[in-house]
Amino acid sequence: LGVDLFFEGSEKKIEVVVAREKIEGQCLRLLGDSFWGKIVEDCNAQILSKISNDSVTAYLLSESSLFVWDDRFVMITCGTTVLVNSIMSFLKKFDTSIIESLIFQRKNEYFSHLQKTSFLDDIDNLQKMIKGKSYRFGDLDGHHNYLFHIDRPFKPAKEDKTSELLMYHIKGEAKEVFSSQRQTLETIRNFFNFEELLPGFIIDDYLFDPFGYSVNAIKDSYYATFHITPEADTSYVSFETNLNNDEDPENRKLLGKVIEMFKPTTFDIVSFNSDDNSDVQSSSCHQLVNQIKDILDIGYHVNFCHFIEKQNKVGKAVVI
Amino acid sequence: LGVDLFFEGSEKKIEVVVAREKIEGQCLRLLGDSFWGKIVEDCNAQILSKISNDSVTAYLLSESSLFVWDDRFVMITCGTTVLVNSIMSFLKKFDTSIIESLIFQRKNEYFSHLQKTSFLDDIDNLQKMIKGKSYRFGDLDGHHNYLFHIDRPFKPAKEDKTSELLMYHIKGEAKEVFSSQRQTLETIRNFFNFEELLPGFIIDDYLFDPFGYSVNAIKDSYYATFHITPEADTSYVSFETNLNNDEDPENRKLLGKVIEMFKPTTFDIVSFNSDDNSDVQSSSCHQLVNQIKDILDIGYHVNFCHFIEKQNKVGKAVVI
Repeated sequence: LGVDLFFEGSEKKIEVVVAREKIEGQCLRLLGDSFWGKIVEDCNAQILSKISNDSVTAYLLSESSLFVWDDRFVMITCGTTVLVNSIMSFLKKFDTSIIESLIFQRKNEYFSHLQKTSFLDDIDNLQKMIKGKSYRFGDLDGHHNYLFHIDRPFKPAKEDKTSELLMYHIKGEAKEVFSSQRQTLETIRNFFNFEELLPGFIIDDYLFDPFGYSVNAIKDSYYATFHITPEADTSYVSFETNLNNDEDPENRKLLGKVIEMFKPTTFDIVSFNSDDNSDVQSSSCHQLVNQIKDILDIGYHVNFCHFIEKQNKVGKAVVI
Repeated sequence: LGVDLFFEGSEKKIEVVVAREKIEGQCLRLLGDSFWGKIVEDCNAQILSKISNDSVTAYLLSESSLFVWDDRFVMITCGTTVLVNSIMSFLKKFDTSIIESLIFQRKNEYFSHLQKTSFLDDIDNLQKMIKGKSYRFGDLDGHHNYLFHIDRPFKPAKEDKTSELLMYHIKGEAKEVFSSQRQTLETIRNFFNFEELLPGFIIDDYLFDPFGYSVNAIKDSYYATFHITPEADTSYVSFETNLNNDEDPENRKLLGKVIEMFKPTTFDIVSFNSDDNSDVQSSSCHQLVNQIKDILDIGYHVNFCHFIEKQNKVGKAVVI
């Protein structure tokens, strides 16, 4: 019955880019584990472990992940965390003039009434420190993704491409593996086969009790991360990466492979300067039910797509 | 800009059937306007007007509708009303042994975090007085409809058939008519053309300020009711009727006609002992994305269908 528990997997995400020359020590990574540990604690999460290479440090958190490069960081949190508290804690430690870009995102939740704040609450708070613009990608009665960015001129680097794949109601082997009472890190790693899925990446993963699994993967300045909440009726898996999906033909297939692994009933793809959903659309057994494309003032082409499995069976009511 | 205001159109609904011989005066309608006015006030709504015939009294409410027959009543409320307070107020006035059937429904809301209670809160309260079973029709990340019924043997009458049509994001003439600053009851009645849509029905309607329209219609023991909240980005129209859709060929076409009038981007049909969505499915420009069918212990075949317009254009992000 443990798998009937509810855990809100839907994430909030912050990406901050700083002007390196304006920060003491000239590098976000040199701020150290205790600095980032404190930032993470400010939204009631903890650092569980870390991996590092020449470009990026990846912290695995009790509620998702934090990636820190020399000039930027990406933090993703789930559950009922108030991520905006961590952002404000970071901003208070520096003059906000060091911030070149700040993008805050928040997905629709399964149970928004159980969250401590709404997106509008978050933005009201954040704008006490730094002004910006807010958008919603997707309809309020369907999947949607809120996005706030600060109102400063910004030009993303050519290779700055991100894809977020958010999957609901997983099926098949994935469901078996992640909701089994006998799950182990070994069975899960076999399921992923990271050597083939993400060749050359360093892997850091964690199995939560009683359910849930997170993994960070890094290679050069690239990252990939999965967060899995397998609880029945509310299962949710997120995959996010800055691999340049539209150049390497193998990477182009990455999202499709992951969808095939998890067999979600519904999923969203949110991409930044990366138009990587065309393969998915033509090959899968899912239908596109909503697509929103827009160009942000800060130079990102954002593409939001909501897919639902083609209807082929009639379900039963869920007893609650 | 008024049309950018938000009003939660998504309804809660209660249907109660009593054993007539067990109530004083032997008839729910004889309880009178002041009795029902008090019940309505208990969820912070007011009676605005009423119409009546030999079988049913229809009250138009500040938040939707109340229909009272001799042995049953149906109350529908929207906004942030706590309908369960009215139900408990009704139950307190009688011994609960008079209740033959009680079905409470609640739709997913646009903004569930703005509601005063969740469905589970409602059911916890209600079950302090009367026990039952709860179900959810539809997935948590899509449209869904919660349903609670009491746990007593019940056999619906053969003619007891209900259809609920819940429409989102209306377009075309309907959008124009209901969100125009120059809207009048006359333009709205012309739009509906009730004489053709619901021939022989008595009509009672109300235009809210600045936006919103409700109408009750009755004929013999039949009722039909529309509630329209046209606010941009969160427009919502509900239509509900106990017309026997699957017998009269004209009535079979009724839901399809209404969908054609409002051109919603998405809609749900929830039917009780009435399988009236087959025409819709084959003729419309919408695709069925989820269907849940189940038979309740109390004898109702419930069919929940969620339709989304076939994707044919890419949208823009909404500035918020």
